[in-house]
Amino acid sequence: MNVDIDHVRALMVEACRRSAVPAESVDLVVDHYLLGETQGKYSHGVAKFCFESQFFGERQGSPRTVRERGVLAIVDAQREIGPVSADHAVRIAADRARELGAGIVGMINTQRYGILSPWAEHLARAGFLGIVMNTSRADSTVEGARTPFLGVNPISYAVPTTGEPLVVDMSTTKSPMGVLWEARRGAAQLPAESFVDLDGDFTVDPHLAESAMVFGGHKGFAVSLLIQIMTGSLFGFPMGPGVESTWTTGYTFIAIDPSFGGELDDFPNNNARLVEVMEGVGTRDSQPFRIPGRRSRAHVRKVTALGKLDIPDSVYRRLRARAAGDFVSD
Amino acid sequence: MNVDIDHVRALMVEACRRSAVPAESVDLVVDHYLLGETQGKYSHGVAKFCFESQFFGERQGSPRTVRERGVLAIVDAQREIGPVSADHAVRIAADRARELGAGIVGMINTQRYGILSPWAEHLARAGFLGIVMNTSRADSTVEGARTPFLGVNPISYAVPTTGEPLVVDMSTTKSPMGVLWEARRGAAQLPAESFVDLDGDFTVDPHLAESAMVFGGHKGFAVSLLIQIMTGSLFGFPMGPGVESTWTTGYTFIAIDPSFGGELDDFPNNNARLVEVMEGVGTRDSQPFRIPGRRSRAHVRKVTALGKLDIPDSVYRRLRARAAGDFVSD
Repeated sequence: MNVDIDHVRALMVEACRRSAVPAESVDLVVDHYLLGETQGKYSHGVAKFCFESQFFGERQGSPRTVRERGVLAIVDAQREIGPVSADHAVRIAADRARELGAGIVGMINTQRYGILSPWAEHLARAGFLGIVMNTSRADSTVEGARTPFLGVNPISYAVPTTGEPLVVDMSTTKSPMGVLWEARRGAAQLPAESFVDLDGDFTVDPHLAESAMVFGGHKGFAVSLLIQIMTGSLFGFPMGPGVESTWTTGYTFIAIDPSFGGELDDFPNNNARLVEVMEGVGTRDSQPFRIPGRRSRAHVRKVTALGKLDIPDSVYRRLRARAAGDFVSD
Repeated sequence: MNVDIDHVRALMVEACRRSAVPAESVDLVVDHYLLGETQGKYSHGVAKFCFESQFFGERQGSPRTVRERGVLAIVDAQREIGPVSADHAVRIAADRARELGAGIVGMINTQRYGILSPWAEHLARAGFLGIVMNTSRADSTVEGARTPFLGVNPISYAVPTTGEPLVVDMSTTKSPMGVLWEARRGAAQLPAESFVDLDGDFTVDPHLAESAMVFGGHKGFAVSLLIQIMTGSLFGFPMGPGVESTWTTGYTFIAIDPSFGGELDDFPNNNARLVEVMEGVGTRDSQPFRIPGRRSRAHVRKVTALGKLDIPDSVYRRLRARAAGDFVSD
């Protein structure tokens, strides 16, 4: 159904109030999930807010830096709400980077957030190369294999340009796990060659699917494995089958300050030139070359101008329930 | 032909002597290219030594750190021979990491080296997460496009385990450029869907191929683009079409010391556990799961035990020419 953004926002704010989200965190939480929705990433927008809000009440405190030495820091988020934790972590990464040229922050024991890109973009807007990643339960495997042993391991990065930051946001599986969960609910088919069954054969049947497939063959595997290490053993966090809940899932936030290499003004200028080169890339179909992040941004502009969101009835029902204090109904 | 390793080594040493490689660098240079050969990476072994040795005489000095602040350092290699430059850069990265928890070193104006993995592995043996990458001339493009605008952008990383380090080494194109050059010489066909012509259509004709294809669709593109930025604008080095020679090609060496997060002994232990998990991964064909880097290591063991190398006649001829002081013949 077609609903005013303001109305959706009001319901989300009310749901936060009902689940005792601290007043000072409400905007941060609501804006985060609304941004996912207006970017057109529906699995990470209002629907995810409705899902994650069941855990809001489980927060035990505010994120706390348990170790900080040189460029590294480790944050115990004390089950804080995801966007609040992430906001805390990127600020520490930025502080370290301002002081030493880089900040590498590992965080654990946090609730989840929606999209990754706002945190990378936060760092890019401060002039840094920002990189954000996390792991998940071992839901993924690689071509030729059947046992899931890697997390979905998404990564986002962003750099300043002379205009909007250049932003990339991707999972390292061919298809996000949300597609599987949604297909199981609706008995829909899965996308081709994205999930495998117990024997390691590709399946489009959501009830036979056991593992999500990592993108890009053995090279994609190598990328996912690096993310696994950088969100795991680097900070002493669990990996693979050791990640058995939200609370043991590792997150990593990296800021690198190019001004330490002398690139104070040239970093955005040179990135802008790279974007210009990409704008001039010839394509097979003579359509403009697709610059990462631009489609999401255009979607936000369009939706914001309209002031309206298209939301599935079921999601709207769930959101109204949350605003009424029901955090369990599906 | 089948030749004693010692004989090949002696010819390589003689070629170094003939091209005025400083005596203290000869072993480093020769061992590097011999390792590529014994790992079975023939395009990066003796053949590459024969090619690169034509530039050995162009060195203008030893690598020189032109800027160092916090974790970042920039090295002007003064056209030093590739393996010597890389050895210098990893040592600086390690020094920074020991002091601050990370070292991020950009290097430019260097001759090339062969395989990347020894430098990542050097850092892993010192207890770090080691990451090494570089760009190249803009030879690569992405699916749906035709203009080359990305470098081949290889990356290698390594971490300590309780046994041998876990090592990954890959290019971000489906096929290395060496395959194209070799196919042009021998009029062989290219591998399928790895190169595109002027129109952006896949071609197997080496004379029609204009760009190498980046692996993994738009996700592989995102990885290559990140490497482009981290070997380019991050240090004010050229990118894309700005990379027009060996001397303007950017290299990046990263060391992260997990002991700054408290993971002094646990880092290798936890990585070893990850390897164990991978050893237990079920495969479709019930063959053992392939752990990255193991095949290369097995190849080295086999070849070293035999004491013999299988080298194409043409490469052997070229090597003999180099040892006789001829650095131009093909």
